Formats: sequence, C-alpha cells, structure tokens
Amino acid sequence: MTLAHGGGGKAMRDLIGEVFTSVFEPESSEDQARLMSDAVREPGARLAFTTDSFVVDPVEFPGGDIGKIAVCGTVNDLAVGGATPLWLSAAFIIEEGTEIALLRRIVASMKAEADRAGVRIVTGDTKVVGRGSADKVFITTSGIGVIPAGRDLCAAHVQPGDVAIVNHVLGDHGAAILAARGEMALSADMPSDCAGLGHLMAAVAQACPTLRCARDATRGGLASALNEIADEAGVAVEIAEDTLPIRAEVKGMCEILGLDPLYLANEGTLVLFVAPEDVDAALAAMRSVPEGQGAVVIGRVHDSGSGPRVTMRTLFGGARIVDMLVGEQLPRIC
Amino acid sequence: MTLAHGGGGKAMRDLIGEVFTSVFEPESSEDQARLMSDAVREPGARLAFTTDSFVVDPVEFPGGDIGKIAVCGTVNDLAVGGATPLWLSAAFIIEEGTEIALLRRIVASMKAEADRAGVRIVTGDTKVVGRGSADKVFITTSGIGVIPAGRDLCAAHVQPGDVAIVNHVLGDHGAAILAARGEMALSADMPSDCAGLGHLMAAVAQACPTLRCARDATRGGLASALNEIADEAGVAVEIAEDTLPIRAEVKGMCEILGLDPLYLANEGTLVLFVAPEDVDAALAAMRSVPEGQGAVVIGRVHDSGSGPRVTMRTLFGGARIVDMLVGEQLPRIC
Repeated sequence: MTLAHGGGGKAMRDLIGEVFTSVFEPESSEDQARLMSDAVREPGARLAFTTDSFVVDPVEFPGGDIGKIAVCGTVNDLAVGGATPLWLSAAFIIEEGTEIALLRRIVASMKAEADRAGVRIVTGDTKVVGRGSADKVFITTSGIGVIPAGRDLCAAHVQPGDVAIVNHVLGDHGAAILAARGEMALSADMPSDCAGLGHLMAAVAQACPTLRCARDATRGGLASALNEIADEAGVAVEIAEDTLPIRAEVKGMCEILGLDPLYLANEGTLVLFVAPEDVDAALAAMRSVPEGQGAVVIGRVHDSGSGPRVTMRTLFGGARIVDMLVGEQLPRIC
Repeated sequence: MTLAHGGGGKAMRDLIGEVFTSVFEPESSEDQARLMSDAVREPGARLAFTTDSFVVDPVEFPGGDIGKIAVCGTVNDLAVGGATPLWLSAAFIIEEGTEIALLRRIVASMKAEADRAGVRIVTGDTKVVGRGSADKVFITTSGIGVIPAGRDLCAAHVQPGDVAIVNHVLGDHGAAILAARGEMALSADMPSDCAGLGHLMAAVAQACPTLRCARDATRGGLASALNEIADEAGVAVEIAEDTLPIRAEVKGMCEILGLDPLYLANEGTLVLFVAPEDVDAALAAMRSVPEGQGAVVIGRVHDSGSGPRVTMRTLFGGARIVDMLVGEQLPRIC
C-alpha cells in the first residue's frame, strides 16, 4: 500500500476495484447504496442501526481475523437487539506499507462471514495513512437491520425471577488474542470464539415469547455485560460459579496470569434473559444452531436490595461481588 | 486518554457518558439505535446508506475540524445521491494520550453540524489504541437517508447537451489543509469550504426535474469527479477555464507550489448536471441557500468520440486534457 492508494485518483480506484468491489460486488458505483426490503415496510417494523471500529492486534489470530470480527461484531450488535441483520458498510483505514495480500485475505474473510450471516456489504471507503500513523489496518463496520413489529428486547425489561443463559464457553476470544501475541510463550491451541449470532438470536426470539434481552459479552467480558443489564433493569443478578462454562486451557491461562475469565472478551458469546417458563424452549432453540451447542443456565435475577448488582455463588459456597471492569485488562482486543 | 478508556469497563462508560452521549443524546443505552420515519414507509421510497473514514491532518484547521468534516462528508454523500439525510453513526479511534479537551471540541463541532444539517447522531463507538498506533483521532461516520419515490440521480443518466454547474469556489479545502500544516510558511487566511450540502441538494432537486446527478468534489478534486461521471455516463465533458471559480489566494498558492486547483480537494463543493432548459432554475435554487451563493455554469456534455473524457478550453483558446489524478497530491486531506 502506498499513500497514492488513498488519494482519490486512479491508484485508489484500481485498488478499490481489484481488492474490494470485485469481492463485495456492490450494485452501483455511486458513493451510496440504495436499498429497500419488504420487511422494512411492514407496519410496526423499525430499523436498527449500529457501528463499531475494530483495531484488534494481531490482525490475524487463531479462529479469525480483523475482517471476520468486523462482520460478526456488527451482525451481533444488530442480532442481540432483536433485529434481522440486512446490510453492512465497511470503512478501512490502512497503514502505508501494509501488504495487499493481507488485505485480500481480510476481505475474503469478511465476504465469507457476511454470506454465512445472510447480510450484504453494500458500501465502503478506504483511507491510507503514512507509516506509523496507524497499525496495519483498522476497520469500521456499520449495520442496518430490521426489528419486526412487536419485538422489543431491552435490558430494562429484565425482572426478578428471570433466568440468565449463555450460549458458549467464556473467554475464548480474550485468551486467543493473548496467546496469539506470543508475549506469554503459551503454546496451547486457543481459537477465538468469533462467530455471527444472527441465526441463534432468530431461533430464540421465535421460540421464546418472554425473551427480555440479550447482550454479546465482548470488551469487558460477561461481568461487564451483566453489570450493564442489572444496572439498566434495576435488579440484582446472581450467577453460580459451578455452572460457568470455561475451557480448561482458558482457566489454566487465567490462573497462570492472574486474569479473571469473567472479564475476558468474547466475540461469539452472548448472555440472554428469559422468564422461567421459557428456559427449556430457549435452551432447545439455542442448541438447534451450531453457535448455541453450549447453551447453559448460569444465573437468576433477584430483587435489587441495597446490595451489589452482580454476585457469584462460588464453588466453596460463598458469595463474591462481580463488579464492572475498572481499568483495562487487555488493550486492542477487538 | 488512557488505554483503560477503551477497555469496555467503568473508565470507558464514564468517558462515553461525559464526552459523547451527554452531547449526542442518543435515545437508548442499547448498542443499537432503533429508528423509523414516515418517509421511509412511503411507497417507492428507498434507503440510502454510506460510510467514510476521516483521518485529516491536522485535526483542527481554519474553517473546521475532523468532527465537522466527518458529519458534512457523510451528509453530503447522502445528499448528492438525492437522499434526505436522517441518521448518522460515529465511531472514534483515539490515540492514547489525546487530550480530552480536544475530543470535546470535536464532539461539539459534530453536534453543531448535525443540527445544521437536520440529522441526528444516533449510535457510536470508541476504541483507544496505544501511542503511535494512530494519529490523535480518526472518525468513521455512516449515514442513512431516504430517497423519495421517483428520484433517481445517477452518473449514467448524464447525456450530451447537459450542463455542468458548481456551487462554490474550487480547492479551498485542499489549500486550507496545506496552509494549516505550516510546511509552506504561508500566512494567507485560507479557510476550508467544509459545509453540509443537504439543503442545497433539496432545493435543486425540488426545482429541477432534469437533475441527472451530483457529486461532491472531495479527494481528487473536481477533475476526478468529472472523470468518474464522464466515464460512467460514456460521454465527454468540456469545461471552460474562464468560468472556473477559484479564489486568488488559492490560485496563487497553486502557482507557487506547482499544484493544479482542479485536483485540490473540496469539502463543500459539488458538481451537478442538468438539461439546458433547467439551468436557470438550478442556478436560482442553488443561490437560494448560503452554500450555493457561488453557483456558476462551468461546462457542457458532448458525445463521446474516441477522444479524452474530460477536456478544458483554456484561457488562451486551446484545449487541455483533464485526466484522473494518478498519484497522490496531498495525503490525509480528509
């Protein structure tokens, strides 16, 4: 990549044609995509709109790369809100000197993940900055989805008695990035959990009339997601340590490094809340798709007294406060 | 800014609350905005969706800053396609050590410009990267607009006989950035033309049934915009040098530095094409808003022979080929 690739002229048009639009195949050469879907016109339907920048380091890691995470992350932000993801934009900030071959791999990965999620990448942008003004490549994806009439997932709807369920083991993404940086001389095979959760959310929303809300447990991990939800709903959440699904390799890594898997980032793991009568239906729906094979109940919602928002019943029978992450556990995790 | 501000925990939530959401005032604390507008549901209406990353250096310059340009750029990409801009997302990649006061100024500038354009910034994201992994702050905005039924602006619709009109003097943004970098020891007051063009486009689209297309002449300048349009329409465009509006200071700077104002970037200047019978109506509509006070005819469309796509009749009566920009005139212009 040279600075000319970002200059607006011939070099940029050639790059965009060869590396980006030949793969994403947008319908027009205008600067904007023009879109419509019958679902958007349905009475009571709403649009969902979300954005995320991705700066993960390294840009390629076991189980994914920055392209896969950029598509999954935005698809998931739409899906956990109850929206059917439809269209994505992708904006690239590329450091001068970045290999074109790396960009091609990232773009191929985005296309494959978009196809899997049933979304189209319809518009984009590229900027090139000088050496040392960025680190290889940053990607910002934005997404539009449609929320069908009557669906209203919202943390504030969570109420005492509700049950918390996760779909997958915790902490795999954080552990994968840590291992991939090679700073720890860890040789265990640690793939990220990076995955799109659109099909999972569609199955649960269909099966569970009492689905209150869902949130993907990305930066800050499960602990931060639970604290946000408890805070917005004005309730207390108690989770049970013996129910938390964590792989032995991740547990081991956390013990060695003094990390808490509850705060490790995930990229394909969500927590959702349903009323007790819908727990079996939720588990069955989740297990009907590959991303939900590991679905388990991890906790319950209680009245909020004056006590802490999120607590964990430990293996030894005690109770521990699970607070928000205060500092930074691991920079550039996504 | 510290890395903890991007970590997903308490520091990040405090930062987002204090610096971003207290100004943008999104309606919900969910990761997605939920939106609808009557205009979207009109029969025949389409959504417009666009994205751009902004990496301008310096981040503050006469006439604007990276926040203003990030809002105007995306508003303009929607507007030149005939869409009414409705909603914006804003994603920030911030270098560790960036002053919070700078962020506050940028955010205030975005809010002011969004208000002026009549759009809402409804969702966002922040990531923090280590010192030297980015340059102060990069912003990616995406935008959703609605294109009313029956409106179809498209470069391919431009045809022989059509007239090219610009709204404003050329090259002010490129000249402003060059001067602001201070490398040239130029002391002239050179403000950028950075401006939102939504109201201008609404006025022209209303007044001119034959409006074919419009394009903002950003990176690569007027020359690149004209070449793209001529290429997509399969026509030739001839512009007249004596009609091109360029400020004397910009002309002088270009002469000293050997730059061509046709390739200098603009951030509030567009070129549009109408049939000859609509020229007077277009000029009147453009001049009815502040951003169109400088509206002038600059050229005409001809049959494409085997000759070059874009030519300029010079002051001396000759003809000069106006090609696409080949290399990079000025990096990080937007």
